[in-house]
Amino acid sequence: MAVPAGGRSPVEAAALYGPVAGDLPLVDAKLASLAEVEAPWLREMLGAVLAGGGKRMRPAVALLAGRFGRYEAGRLVPLAASVELLHTATLVHDDVIDASPERRGRPTAAALFQNGPSVMLGDYMFAYAADFVAETGNIRAIRAFAKTLRVMATGELEQDLSAFEYSEDVQRYFDRIAGKTASLFATAAEGGAVVAGAGEPSVEALRRYGQRLGMAFQIVDDVLDFSGDAEALGKPVASDLRAGTLTLPAILYLQRQPDDNPVRRAFDGVRPRANVERAVAAIREGGLLEETMEVARRFAGEALAALEAAPAEAADSATRETLAGLVSEVLERRS
Amino acid sequence: MAVPAGGRSPVEAAALYGPVAGDLPLVDAKLASLAEVEAPWLREMLGAVLAGGGKRMRPAVALLAGRFGRYEAGRLVPLAASVELLHTATLVHDDVIDASPERRGRPTAAALFQNGPSVMLGDYMFAYAADFVAETGNIRAIRAFAKTLRVMATGELEQDLSAFEYSEDVQRYFDRIAGKTASLFATAAEGGAVVAGAGEPSVEALRRYGQRLGMAFQIVDDVLDFSGDAEALGKPVASDLRAGTLTLPAILYLQRQPDDNPVRRAFDGVRPRANVERAVAAIREGGLLEETMEVARRFAGEALAALEAAPAEAADSATRETLAGLVSEVLERRS
Repeated sequence: MAVPAGGRSPVEAAALYGPVAGDLPLVDAKLASLAEVEAPWLREMLGAVLAGGGKRMRPAVALLAGRFGRYEAGRLVPLAASVELLHTATLVHDDVIDASPERRGRPTAAALFQNGPSVMLGDYMFAYAADFVAETGNIRAIRAFAKTLRVMATGELEQDLSAFEYSEDVQRYFDRIAGKTASLFATAAEGGAVVAGAGEPSVEALRRYGQRLGMAFQIVDDVLDFSGDAEALGKPVASDLRAGTLTLPAILYLQRQPDDNPVRRAFDGVRPRANVERAVAAIREGGLLEETMEVARRFAGEALAALEAAPAEAADSATRETLAGLVSEVLERRS
Repeated sequence: MAVPAGGRSPVEAAALYGPVAGDLPLVDAKLASLAEVEAPWLREMLGAVLAGGGKRMRPAVALLAGRFGRYEAGRLVPLAASVELLHTATLVHDDVIDASPERRGRPTAAALFQNGPSVMLGDYMFAYAADFVAETGNIRAIRAFAKTLRVMATGELEQDLSAFEYSEDVQRYFDRIAGKTASLFATAAEGGAVVAGAGEPSVEALRRYGQRLGMAFQIVDDVLDFSGDAEALGKPVASDLRAGTLTLPAILYLQRQPDDNPVRRAFDGVRPRANVERAVAAIREGGLLEETMEVARRFAGEALAALEAAPAEAADSATRETLAGLVSEVLERRS
């Protein structure tokens, strides 16, 4: 956890996270404090999970939103750490459920420590997430967190129960990623604003900004699952499709070619591996990833519009520009 | 969920729960509200898990503790529901980890819905538990809850990782059940007192009462695992020992006969089934269950002493007598 801001150099972090770049290492330190426990086996497990690093985009959003009110690191850093921890704990449980061996090229907790200990490890991290958000002393932020965990769990359950159904449509996909991903971005932004005592118009605008940013983030993620190469992704190409989950590129492809479609055949159990390969090639070559990116750009545009709607006097221009820059970053990321 | 107070008749409930018997159905109603969701699959899962019923002893302790301050059902009922929900969610995850097919003679969520959905179901219930405790508006109670979840997860992890080790000693057993069971009883009592704004001496005394009551509760549970018959327990006799977990009766038996012991042989993989049967018979016939009950009675005595230590003027005698009665109930229960 010595590398600041989730594996970025200080210069990169400053460019991306602007006025809060200096406080992100405090979030990392707060997360690292979890692993300072006596039991060596627990220290090892937490170390492995927390070292994954990610981009720390969610905590950055929380901190930046805090600049629309009275920015106090003592309350905002625990909030930001809580956001990241809730995210990481959810990943730990997801990897148990999906029996995923790798994430971002590293073995998952489920693979390293088996299912039972990984379930408990996730619970332990949820407990710390709850404690960190309680440190803010803000009941509204705490309740927003509880609601987000509920929504995230429902989204994952729904995904799990609808595996290998090819009746998925765009609206259900939006609902699902709203629960699974966008709700936490929205709560990060709302939570930061609420904890800082920002005005209600700012809170509303930031919540919407976070929600739309999260939607764009997940859609780009789903594009990268098809377009990236396996090594950069740290997992096989089209891993969702292989697991029976339809994401936007495959849904749009099924809409375009509803009858004779390799996705249908794969989900019906007809030579699934060969048909998935065929589907991936067709989706890549048929322009469906570009079409999907168009949808992501629409959500990104709505995120920027939400930001514009926040009262002009509520935050300095560096904060606004950094939040706008994160929208571009989400669209342009390659992994 | 129509049956009040966890499957007891109103008369039984009134005898056992005294002045809070009338409010326990409100806790049941609060728990039932979880299952009022749109998704039919989620409704089914929650219905199956929450209908289990239990004795509602933890919520009763929370409500009774609230009578040491300003008793407000509007704040204490959510707290009590949160306690029960945290308990139930933990059981859902435990059953995934232990791959338990039955609990109290009913199929577990893990058996009914498989592991993945059960992990998420537990998370969903944790989220509601967090939301309910946040409804109290009391940061101290919220943090006590977060800490309890952490301690409970650690206790379960420790149990999981030390399976089939016969070096377990009494102190480690006490530490483990303190985390796994007593911490939630302690937090129920502390939380009720804190939410009701009870004085600090009452809060302290009630926390200690809850902790000791929880220790006695778990030790009796571990005796019943050996003494009960499989049908009443809803699980095989000595299920812990079969799963490689040493509880107090087996630990005391190993201390008495450290060298040539069927538990050792079973854990070493030597004809495990026959050696477990032999161990169960030896523990039952060697007076070890009575010896273990002696330990439970010691903790029960400490619970009563803690209750005595609470300021005399803080609560009415019906409340005190009911809390004292719960101690007897824990010692005398047969299932």
